Amino acid sequence: MRSAMARANVGDDDYGEDPTVNELQQLAARILGMEDALFVPTATMANLIAVMCHCQRRGAQLLLGAQAHLHVYEHGGAAQVAGVHSQALPDLPDGTLDLEQLELAIREAQGSRYHPRPELICLENTHSSAGGRALPLTYLQQVRLLAERYGLRVHMDGARLMNAAVAQDVEPARITQHCDSVSLCFSKGLGAPAGAVLAGRRAFVAEAWRVRKLLGGGMRQAGVLAAAARIGLEQAEETLRRDHDNARRFAQGIKELNSPLYSVSLAAVETNIVMVEVKGLPPAELCTYLQAVSEEELAETGCTVSVLLFPWSERTVRAVWHCDVSSHDTELALNKLSFVARKCQEKLAQGRGPSPRGTGER
Amino acid sequence: MRSAMARANVGDDDYGEDPTVNELQQLAARILGMEDALFVPTATMANLIAVMCHCQRRGAQLLLGAQAHLHVYEHGGAAQVAGVHSQALPDLPDGTLDLEQLELAIREAQGSRYHPRPELICLENTHSSAGGRALPLTYLQQVRLLAERYGLRVHMDGARLMNAAVAQDVEPARITQHCDSVSLCFSKGLGAPAGAVLAGRRAFVAEAWRVRKLLGGGMRQAGVLAAAARIGLEQAEETLRRDHDNARRFAQGIKELNSPLYSVSLAAVETNIVMVEVKGLPPAELCTYLQAVSEEELAETGCTVSVLLFPWSERTVRAVWHCDVSSHDTELALNKLSFVARKCQEKLAQGRGPSPRGTGER
Amino acid sequence: MRSAMARANVGDDDYGEDPTVNELQQLAARILGMEDALFVPTATMANLIAVMCHCQRRGAQLLLGAQAHLHVYEHGGAAQVAGVHSQALPDLPDGTLDLEQLELAIREAQGSRYHPRPELICLENTHSSAGGRALPLTYLQQVRLLAERYGLRVHMDGARLMNAAVAQDVEPARITQHCDSVSLCFSKGLGAPAGAVLAGRRAFVAEAWRVRKLLGGGMRQAGVLAAAARIGLEQAEETLRRDHDNARRFAQGIKELNSPLYSVSLAAVETNIVMVEVKGLPPAELCTYLQAVSEEELAETGCTVSVLLFPWSERTVRAVWHCDVSSHDTELALNKLSFVARKCQEKLAQGRGPSPRGTGER
Amino acid sequence: MRSAMARANVGDDDYGEDPTVNELQQLAARILGMEDALFVPTATMANLIAVMCHCQRRGAQLLLGAQAHLHVYEHGGAAQVAGVHSQALPDLPDGTLDLEQLELAIREAQGSRYHPRPELICLENTHSSAGGRALPLTYLQQVRLLAERYGLRVHMDGARLMNAAVAQDVEPARITQHCDSVSLCFSKGLGAPAGAVLAGRRAFVAEAWRVRKLLGGGMRQAGVLAAAARIGLEQAEETLRRDHDNARRFAQGIKELNSPLYSVSLAAVETNIVMVEVKGLPPAELCTYLQAVSEEELAETGCTVSVLLFPWSERTVRAVWHCDVSSHDTELALNKLSFVARKCQEKLAQGRGPSPRGTGER
Repeated sequence: MRSAMARANVGDDDYGEDPTVNELQQLAARILGMEDALFVPTATMANLIAVMCHCQRRGAQLLLGAQAHLHVYEHGGAAQVAGVHSQALPDLPDGTLDLEQLELAIREAQGSRYHPRPELICLENTHSSAGGRALPLTYLQQVRLLAERYGLRVHMDGARLMNAAVAQDVEPARITQHCDSVSLCFSKGLGAPAGAVLAGRRAFVAEAWRVRKLLGGGMRQAGVLAAAARIGLEQAEETLRRDHDNARRFAQGIKELNSPLYSVSLAAVETNIVMVEVKGLPPAELCTYLQAVSEEELAETGCTVSVLLFPWSERTVRAVWHCDVSSHDTELALNKLSFVARKCQEKLAQGRGPSPRGTGER
Repeated sequence: MRSAMARANVGDDDYGEDPTVNELQQLAARILGMEDALFVPTATMANLIAVMCHCQRRGAQLLLGAQAHLHVYEHGGAAQVAGVHSQALPDLPDGTLDLEQLELAIREAQGSRYHPRPELICLENTHSSAGGRALPLTYLQQVRLLAERYGLRVHMDGARLMNAAVAQDVEPARITQHCDSVSLCFSKGLGAPAGAVLAGRRAFVAEAWRVRKLLGGGMRQAGVLAAAARIGLEQAEETLRRDHDNARRFAQGIKELNSPLYSVSLAAVETNIVMVEVKGLPPAELCTYLQAVSEEELAETGCTVSVLLFPWSERTVRAVWHCDVSSHDTELALNKLSFVARKCQEKLAQGRGPSPRGTGER
Repeated sequence: MRSAMARANVGDDDYGEDPTVNELQQLAARILGMEDALFVPTATMANLIAVMCHCQRRGAQLLLGAQAHLHVYEHGGAAQVAGVHSQALPDLPDGTLDLEQLELAIREAQGSRYHPRPELICLENTHSSAGGRALPLTYLQQVRLLAERYGLRVHMDGARLMNAAVAQDVEPARITQHCDSVSLCFSKGLGAPAGAVLAGRRAFVAEAWRVRKLLGGGMRQAGVLAAAARIGLEQAEETLRRDHDNARRFAQGIKELNSPLYSVSLAAVETNIVMVEVKGLPPAELCTYLQAVSEEELAETGCTVSVLLFPWSERTVRAVWHCDVSSHDTELALNKLSFVARKCQEKLAQGRGPSPRGTGER
Repeated sequence: MRSAMARANVGDDDYGEDPTVNELQQLAARILGMEDALFVPTATMANLIAVMCHCQRRGAQLLLGAQAHLHVYEHGGAAQVAGVHSQALPDLPDGTLDLEQLELAIREAQGSRYHPRPELICLENTHSSAGGRALPLTYLQQVRLLAERYGLRVHMDGARLMNAAVAQDVEPARITQHCDSVSLCFSKGLGAPAGAVLAGRRAFVAEAWRVRKLLGGGMRQAGVLAAAARIGLEQAEETLRRDHDNARRFAQGIKELNSPLYSVSLAAVETNIVMVEVKGLPPAELCTYLQAVSEEELAETGCTVSVLLFPWSERTVRAVWHCDVSSHDTELALNKLSFVARKCQEKLAQGRGPSPRGTGER
């Protein structure tokens, strides 16, 4: 990627004259089955632009899952920058919304003179907070039909869309055919240093160009980033398939540990995320033990391994795979989980846990 | 009220020179136990101003119930005008929020660099969507302690605050002592033609003055409205006590009807609202029958009565009392409910319901 | 007016059921030559709603005079609430904008991918900061043609529109035919305690209804205010003609004083405002002398008169007429100006001015 | 630069772990004499963040020049995204504002209860629309004193700040000592592909971090861009000095052409911009001739040169130098201007101009 960046043929993208950006945008549009696409610095900006471009009327309402990244982790940009009211509905465990509840919310608002006006449904695919679940294609189709019936648009926060495509073994465009727009991130599983893309109809992308400029996302020779993004996109299938394999192997390995400390749902591991339920100690404490290395570990296992997991909720930790985590790393991580489980059991038989420090996977 | 309006001593309130407005503001501040108060055209504006004045920092977050009037029925002003992100939590049946969930939401956001920043908790008292429930004083105290612990403010949407005070038989200031600000509506149960008040600390109200002007709520000789509002406020206790009695009598009467069509929770009737659960036909259809008058009704009952109830949700209708609905009207309404129940039972024994048309209570 | 308010037939305007409001709205629409009209608490809200409803697209730009009330005195609501960029152009002395400059500004913005998008031109008529100048009808027509040529709308801040109609001796609709919308204030020259109206096309007013609700301007029994507004509107011509006569007489009287302290342009006095240029002392100091009453005044003139003028700019004071200022008051005010001029001349021959205190005109 | 990008040591800047970004930020803070700095995708975003972070209170007002890039070319982000009212004052020819007018505007607003509240003054240095004028240091000091006297902050849009430092032969920190914050662009004269920096006090930059994330400017491995930016920054003095020499040479060359078609003010050429006044044909037409190449040019001059100038206003074209335009290119451009002037004179003696097409400087 780095050498592609160094060799990239660039121009002033502010005038639409950066050939590498243009090629990436065309490639992304083709892969996503959309008329056009726009390169932006981050998926957060792609989502914010989508909300702003789909919701032009005052009093617009956005319907989305209460755990959606867009609702929770993006500083409330829908309200703060776009002035759009969010109707947040409970997410089901598989990352979907209850369709009856969704329809009821739309109908109530449309039947009222006091409610904001539903204009946009945002779906997240794969759904990060649900543990990387890929949204079922039939669900997507149903949401789209619902949206059309009530005159709404559908935006897909597809930061991890390629994971969904790999998991479901379909072309990305099969997924996005049910959406009016989609964002895609190059810097997570795809491994590029930065950048994302927002794709949709031609007029929508033309409008998105203005909003990108407004927000300060219109870089000059963006081709240096686009060159890396392109490679990430072209290699996505291979990279992600390996990530998914590693994640599944990790989940199975945890099952095989048969430790009372960990439990995991194999059925929920569809992509590159494994949610591990933790019993007997707080997730943050477990993460500290997994990251730490010690003499004792070296003595007992013959090596020291630092594993970076993320304390996700009150009872779960999250493990995410990306291109720099190999299957060997995955085995090493399992060994470390085994070691920590053993130590915790010993302590439980007495009192406290081991002490922290360590190569990392986040 | 009308004659008070005609006789009111007025001045230019834009210069703070309307004596009737000034007196009302002082009276309201005293009753609500706040340093100062501001007269505004509506409770919706009072709430919007409160959100704007409490949430000055960018990225502010408002925590409130998902069924709160402010969240559902005010065109999303918090997002649209104030640019404030709303974290909507599920309302419990008694109109309160789960305190653990509330605390968790605040802690998650404050512990993150990606979440909006919690700044304000909004409570609604009495809680309209919960059927006019008065929030328990201990709950209010707990919310306030929580807010203080995490550096948030508490605003009470007290459009129906006086109902809560009457129901709990306490001074309004006992309730509002747990809040940083409170809004109060003069045109619902209090019977004035228009107007509301927003009360809080002196600096807050000074800031509210500017926002009222910005939004276009700064009227000149507002004293003509304030004169009526004052009477409403002074007579509130008497008026509302009667409304509550009527509502309770209505709910008991429905119980006594013993009809399979209606069911009602007496315990939930704390103020001037009765939620009636309807079985066997859609709420909207029931409302049509209750409003309609017919030859048949005249023949059977000796009079015709049109009752205006509001189809509230998929299974409930809502009845609300105000100063123009007497105890006699309440009995007449019960008679009409009885008549409609009888007719519906007869139709059920055959097929369809009666036919619509009628003087009303809403 | 007060008795009309006391007798007004009202209903719940939130449901469109207040007959007095409905009649006022229809009357205003007819007088203004528009399809529909909406009663709102203040002209500030009428203007803000107009900006919000005309500028629905993101990145909208409003073109207006740098001294327009909307730009200077309304807390920046166009930016703060509506998110609309204002392109403020220099006002000419007669309250108009330079049409070439206006066209150039529109063309530059429309020809650019970096500028906000011109959507709305706001005119103020009469133009308050220009001293109540009535905008020429040919100018209005030219602005409208320009707006149409470039796809913009025209809103008239007609808080004092009736003054313009009286001054130009035309039906108000002759003036507003060149606009897409117009606001009109009932509480300035028209003498009602509060209220304004926003008129325009039917769909525009329907949209304005929602925004009024959002901002908190949707009052319940607004008929009590509408009743007074109606009388103000019906009597406008007579009232304002008298105000204009008084203002003109005042300006002539100042000329006749032939004092070096005051100068006034008779040609610029078209309505109920007189701008008096002050030489030799600061406007604020002059206003203090005019407001003050003294033994000396009583001794010399046989009475004491307190005149309330407003220090407008670094060299001017502003006098405004309304229904409570009679022609007799106007003569008394002239006498007081004469007295103050005399005293100032005497002091100039020695040192300082008289001392302050007094019945008022603002 | 490209190879530095390829070799850059990167990390996740979202966690503050990208060493190349961190080093650039520290370097920029040191050069700009500020406590801290933040890398952002563009100078537009840097400016928008500055407005949002300095203007936290509602009703904030920004004072700036009517021709400022921030006011004219950034899609009205101050209003649209930040909700901040802009008070635009006329720019003087040297890029400064009239200090008396500035003070008067602040005083009027602060003395009023209807005006927005002045919170921030934005200066542009060098001032692009004024032809790259460097703001005098004494002026900057006076603005700062004024700002302090009235409690405002000063932000410098220093997209081209390094040009000012080179032109004035001072350390950049000498200039920015009069500001609370400054933005600096790496992709104009500094020649990096993308990126800018916003510098200020530590707390300001911490707040800016959140807003960058909100707007979608928080890239992951931004070090690849920062590596290039660093080189641009380190080489700035040398690069820009050459640009300024070339610009001055170009302006002198135009003078020497002595053509009635062009005129230029040598005194106004302080940095890398030359504004050429055009007489006798529209700027856009001149630009077409300068860009076009022809057989005739080849025959007459022995080569073809395409010169990219920008039609700036109704009577001026703008020439800008950057690192890819050499002194030889500058001579070639002069030759082309000479050729076009000759042709235009010939045509004037008959009728029309030559025909368009060419290597470019913009």
